[in-house]
Amino acid sequence: MDGHRISMLGTGLISDFYTNTLHGQRGRDRVRVVYSRSEERGSAFKERWAIPESTSDLRAAVEHADTDVVVVALPNFLHEEAVGLAAAAGKAVLCTKPLGRTADEARRMLQAVEAAGVFGGYLEDLCYTPKTLKAIASTQAGAIGDVTWVRSRETHPGPHSAWFWDGRLTGGGAIIDLGCHCIEIIRNFVGKGNRPVEVLCHTDTLVHPIADEDNAVALIRFESGAIGQFEVSWTFRGGMDLRDEVAGTHGTIWMNHFLRTGFEMFSAPGAGGGYVAEKAESSSGWLFPVGDEVSELGYVDMFSDMFQAIDEDRAPQETFYDGYVVNAIMDAAYRSAKAHAWVPVDLDWRGGATARIASTPETYDGQVVVKREILPDGRHKLILKDPASGDFIDRIVGGG
Amino acid sequence: MDGHRISMLGTGLISDFYTNTLHGQRGRDRVRVVYSRSEERGSAFKERWAIPESTSDLRAAVEHADTDVVVVALPNFLHEEAVGLAAAAGKAVLCTKPLGRTADEARRMLQAVEAAGVFGGYLEDLCYTPKTLKAIASTQAGAIGDVTWVRSRETHPGPHSAWFWDGRLTGGGAIIDLGCHCIEIIRNFVGKGNRPVEVLCHTDTLVHPIADEDNAVALIRFESGAIGQFEVSWTFRGGMDLRDEVAGTHGTIWMNHFLRTGFEMFSAPGAGGGYVAEKAESSSGWLFPVGDEVSELGYVDMFSDMFQAIDEDRAPQETFYDGYVVNAIMDAAYRSAKAHAWVPVDLDWRGGATARIASTPETYDGQVVVKREILPDGRHKLILKDPASGDFIDRIVGGG
Amino acid sequence: MDGHRISMLGTGLISDFYTNTLHGQRGRDRVRVVYSRSEERGSAFKERWAIPESTSDLRAAVEHADTDVVVVALPNFLHEEAVGLAAAAGKAVLCTKPLGRTADEARRMLQAVEAAGVFGGYLEDLCYTPKTLKAIASTQAGAIGDVTWVRSRETHPGPHSAWFWDGRLTGGGAIIDLGCHCIEIIRNFVGKGNRPVEVLCHTDTLVHPIADEDNAVALIRFESGAIGQFEVSWTFRGGMDLRDEVAGTHGTIWMNHFLRTGFEMFSAPGAGGGYVAEKAESSSGWLFPVGDEVSELGYVDMFSDMFQAIDEDRAPQETFYDGYVVNAIMDAAYRSAKAHAWVPVDLDWRGGATARIASTPETYDGQVVVKREILPDGRHKLILKDPASGDFIDRIVGGG
Amino acid sequence: MDGHRISMLGTGLISDFYTNTLHGQRGRDRVRVVYSRSEERGSAFKERWAIPESTSDLRAAVEHADTDVVVVALPNFLHEEAVGLAAAAGKAVLCTKPLGRTADEARRMLQAVEAAGVFGGYLEDLCYTPKTLKAIASTQAGAIGDVTWVRSRETHPGPHSAWFWDGRLTGGGAIIDLGCHCIEIIRNFVGKGNRPVEVLCHTDTLVHPIADEDNAVALIRFESGAIGQFEVSWTFRGGMDLRDEVAGTHGTIWMNHFLRTGFEMFSAPGAGGGYVAEKAESSSGWLFPVGDEVSELGYVDMFSDMFQAIDEDRAPQETFYDGYVVNAIMDAAYRSAKAHAWVPVDLDWRGGATARIASTPETYDGQVVVKREILPDGRHKLILKDPASGDFIDRIVGGG
Repeated sequence: MDGHRISMLGTGLISDFYTNTLHGQRGRDRVRVVYSRSEERGSAFKERWAIPESTSDLRAAVEHADTDVVVVALPNFLHEEAVGLAAAAGKAVLCTKPLGRTADEARRMLQAVEAAGVFGGYLEDLCYTPKTLKAIASTQAGAIGDVTWVRSRETHPGPHSAWFWDGRLTGGGAIIDLGCHCIEIIRNFVGKGNRPVEVLCHTDTLVHPIADEDNAVALIRFESGAIGQFEVSWTFRGGMDLRDEVAGTHGTIWMNHFLRTGFEMFSAPGAGGGYVAEKAESSSGWLFPVGDEVSELGYVDMFSDMFQAIDEDRAPQETFYDGYVVNAIMDAAYRSAKAHAWVPVDLDWRGGATARIASTPETYDGQVVVKREILPDGRHKLILKDPASGDFIDRIVGGG
Repeated sequence: MDGHRISMLGTGLISDFYTNTLHGQRGRDRVRVVYSRSEERGSAFKERWAIPESTSDLRAAVEHADTDVVVVALPNFLHEEAVGLAAAAGKAVLCTKPLGRTADEARRMLQAVEAAGVFGGYLEDLCYTPKTLKAIASTQAGAIGDVTWVRSRETHPGPHSAWFWDGRLTGGGAIIDLGCHCIEIIRNFVGKGNRPVEVLCHTDTLVHPIADEDNAVALIRFESGAIGQFEVSWTFRGGMDLRDEVAGTHGTIWMNHFLRTGFEMFSAPGAGGGYVAEKAESSSGWLFPVGDEVSELGYVDMFSDMFQAIDEDRAPQETFYDGYVVNAIMDAAYRSAKAHAWVPVDLDWRGGATARIASTPETYDGQVVVKREILPDGRHKLILKDPASGDFIDRIVGGG
Repeated sequence: MDGHRISMLGTGLISDFYTNTLHGQRGRDRVRVVYSRSEERGSAFKERWAIPESTSDLRAAVEHADTDVVVVALPNFLHEEAVGLAAAAGKAVLCTKPLGRTADEARRMLQAVEAAGVFGGYLEDLCYTPKTLKAIASTQAGAIGDVTWVRSRETHPGPHSAWFWDGRLTGGGAIIDLGCHCIEIIRNFVGKGNRPVEVLCHTDTLVHPIADEDNAVALIRFESGAIGQFEVSWTFRGGMDLRDEVAGTHGTIWMNHFLRTGFEMFSAPGAGGGYVAEKAESSSGWLFPVGDEVSELGYVDMFSDMFQAIDEDRAPQETFYDGYVVNAIMDAAYRSAKAHAWVPVDLDWRGGATARIASTPETYDGQVVVKREILPDGRHKLILKDPASGDFIDRIVGGG
Repeated sequence: MDGHRISMLGTGLISDFYTNTLHGQRGRDRVRVVYSRSEERGSAFKERWAIPESTSDLRAAVEHADTDVVVVALPNFLHEEAVGLAAAAGKAVLCTKPLGRTADEARRMLQAVEAAGVFGGYLEDLCYTPKTLKAIASTQAGAIGDVTWVRSRETHPGPHSAWFWDGRLTGGGAIIDLGCHCIEIIRNFVGKGNRPVEVLCHTDTLVHPIADEDNAVALIRFESGAIGQFEVSWTFRGGMDLRDEVAGTHGTIWMNHFLRTGFEMFSAPGAGGGYVAEKAESSSGWLFPVGDEVSELGYVDMFSDMFQAIDEDRAPQETFYDGYVVNAIMDAAYRSAKAHAWVPVDLDWRGGATARIASTPETYDGQVVVKREILPDGRHKLILKDPASGDFIDRIVGGG
């Protein structure tokens, strides 16, 4: 029943979400020390969450004698250093998304944890939302057949902190911020062993006065023939739009994680306290709050999986290798946008091969059945294709 | 960081939900012993949830040396005995809904815990759903003004266990099973200090071959003038419909807890494993799963509040007194249905008095402003009432 | 292919909706003359809709030589006079809702058209929305079994014109304005031959400085045992909430006619032109426009039915008798609210008798089957009731 | 008030929808003669819709002495011949979507009507749905700022008639069947004068045993920088999914035309009559009917616009030129899929030039304002970019 003691690196919004989750709901794990580059922010965070210690010494935070787990919640350009220190200290390291600014950076981090033999967990919360976990399980159980297409969309009006807008520190714009979520969601549905073969991406900077993309759309073709499609934007108006859609040969899944979850409020004076939900644009008129954000956004299930995995000495659902694959696909997206063409995904692939989606068509009377519909009177209408001529005909037959 | 050790009484569906919650997500509290009237069910439950011990001796379970909290998850007719034993053992006792079969029974249980000076928590999960908690907080912060009306609806096709259908064991039908939820949800929105004055209830048995009601609708009038309306049914088709609607003088809240939460699936072959959500009617076609049922149904926040309250020596959100008030309102509902008339709520009221909803109307030019609308051109349209004649007129005035 | 020529009485919002419908979409019927008590409003209306003539002489408008149909779109207190004139002129008369201010007034109007042998159509648009028409047809075809309960809700922040607020002119408050819609919607679902037996109604004036009710909830018990429930309010915040819910022994119908119809807009600057939808509260932020209001609100199908009925010499779906029944139920609602008790509906009933909802329960092994559930493994779980002892037991049996 | 008399060419599902619309709701226009290649189908259609005549002579139908309008509702490969005959006969011609199988075919049809000086209307119903018309109007009025991105999605399980599946007769697969709708919807939102510059399209045949694509996704880049995205599929499960999403610099529009329109039904026995909505997959369980399909799908407003345009001697919203542009974009999509690359749209462009989406960024203290957020305390948080260094900083300033 013993919990873990954590070195939390970073004090931004994501550190608040993480600590809120870890300290919430009778959890047994606790943040023991928090690191910030700023004494002031570290100290405020310490007070806010009743943490015993804060420090502005990164190494001291990582190597703290009472912690066994390091959570990296720093801006992207600091991930590699922090992961390296944690690996050297022989501690389990959990790193926020994206793993690296590039696949090269991510590969080096992967190598660092593997060489040190420490646990490496990739903190990709949106793959752990309760809806997503149940949908993945249903998909794996065959509820929608073979997955043919996945759309993952994450858009909002732009990040809250300055460093997010500086591609030199992050590795890019809306793709590196939001696309990483979408890509890993897509991989969970098409199957993690399904190799991402090539990417087509379009980016543009339409609204904000920045050098990096504030809008992007991409297609990812997987070995099975499945297509992943992501849409990311820092210019969406209306709040934070998090939706996933999955099409299979025998079914469909639609998930709305934020703006339409069965919770609707009209407030003339404005919702109490001003906070409605992350990235909400106003606090009066029609509002769409979210019940329990740390649960709905996947933080709760994510940390449960991570700590259970450490306790059970198994890999978590989302590993550093997954983070590396995501970076490799984002690299391809940026190359594609620049080349204005499909580009292959450059990747040290550890998964196997995946067969193409296929089924043997039904035949009827020597003809191929293209479609079978049940008529109101119980008879069946067949659309048949003559394999020789390629001609199509309608034919009504008895039911059953 | 130490957790609690629990005597779980009962092994039905609700005990599964409770234990799933307590043992889930890195929680620090644990079921130490489980009681069932049946050795076989107790033993199976013990295995299912990795509990050290099971027993068919109620007193032994309650008085177990290693537990400090007793959770009563038994059929209604066994609540009083179990609560009495727990109080006598000097242990904190958490009792599932409804507290009693009648207000008399509930009052005796309330007296038992108060006399013994033990903690008494009323396990009313649906007052703790994340949406409900946030909506209550917004309402208390003034986001929708004064609450004028609350509709709480809980309907499904009927319970899964035989004893639920026997009014002798439960105290009634759909009201005692489902109405208790609705009533306490309503009280949280209109304010717990807002006295329930009278009740009008209509019941009928339209579908099932039973003696108790399978459908009921009721109105509860509170001292402020607010109206609570509950709709319960054991004959609803399509799954479990859990919705709450709150109208205030300045806003509106709509919550859908189950069938429409932003998670939709079409499955031709059927959702994997057959389980979609509690009370779902089919596992193919269009389905509406719920992400994390124990969270969405309020179990997680409920137990967190209960154990924090014990740890902090404070009252939980839902107390035995609340359970008693709910029983008193249900008693009134049954009396009303029988009398075919409004009946007063018979209650030892501990809350104070609540003023009637009121506001001072705006006046304009000596007339009462009934409504003010902003026209597209920015001018205002006033509907004015002459206080002397009672006549109404329209008047267009400049904006601002 | 010849159309009808219409005398339009009234120039308020409803006359605009009516004329918009009649002159819209290549319709063949046309307004020939419009009457208003005010020359100015009549003239403006004439221009707005390209109508040949306007007049402030009611009799002249009704008796206009070129018209064969009179549409009464006047304030409630003028209906009886207008209907009387039309009947005397031997013209078909279509009267807006509510037919009268009281059942007595409605009965006299019914008698007037019947005595004169002219066509009398009751312009109850919300019984003609495309969703409602399809849902009624499905219900009549057995798609949801026997109807057990209908909820009809119509709420908004209050009417736009002064006269609506004066109960002396209208006959009441929110019930007379909105409840008339709900009642007739309910009747269409429970069956028009299903006698409304008694009514329980609660009213209150919670927000507006008026003498009549701005909120009301009522239950209507029909002969079959079905319950109709209406909720009306002039204090709802967020726009116009028009929803109907129908529960049957074998199914469920949910209709949302206005605020959630699959059309959602977030507008920071504000929707173009300022008009979003009837009773919308703002034109920026999240908005919920309606596609084609005259179609979605039932005006198109209503007038089609009326004119087809005249052409085919048959009764329309909604007759003056229906309007009279609605008034009789509203009278009962007002009496109930005053008496604070269930009251019978006082009515010249032309329908027949309706049997109580009933079904013969399935038996198994001499026991009554209360519920049958299919388990994931294909077996069936029966909840059985012993007819002798009244005891309930669970029993698992093979499937099929 | 006189209507038009129509030669209807074709008797398939689309002819039923068209005639249902034309003859519905008191319309003044009528089908005078119907043509089918099959005497039997022509005769049945004639009976079904009470049409005076049917014929299997195409020229005779077109040249019928009593008709002034020809509606081409034939399979794609017959459009050109029919349009040619109508133009030669000097009659107004309305042609169903897609105009041609290729842009060449469409251009010849465009030339035929222009050379003959007859009216040419392109029957693109989904640009005329009531929601779409209102959304286009709001967009043109500035409600969502500059349009940056439009997603149009049309998917279902595959067409009902054999000829649809034969690319030789249609010109392709799901793109030619469904993509034509999406493209023209997109053009209406980005502006018809906004030149489509290039297209990237991915197609695949994943489920059906056919030679043409059963799935496709494409991006269309317009001159303004706006991106149109269409998703079409003949393998979607769950009914017919028709959704459009529009993102603008200052707002968002979401439209759901079919599966989620505020009309939901659970039917255990099955909806009466078996018909729920076009392409519905089942008639029991949870169903999502559509109120009035001919209205919701745009047929009513489309024909109103067409006939009004003829009467007023103006161009309709959707012209043969629009049909030609759509074909040109589809040609590009097919070329792109084959080339596996972005390809330019080859087009005789009649629109002008469109400026790129742009705005002048706000400055503060010599720095560029990247984002401005209002904090709960009323102060503003600015994210600023130093134009010299490219560095970003956060800064809190007073409100107002």
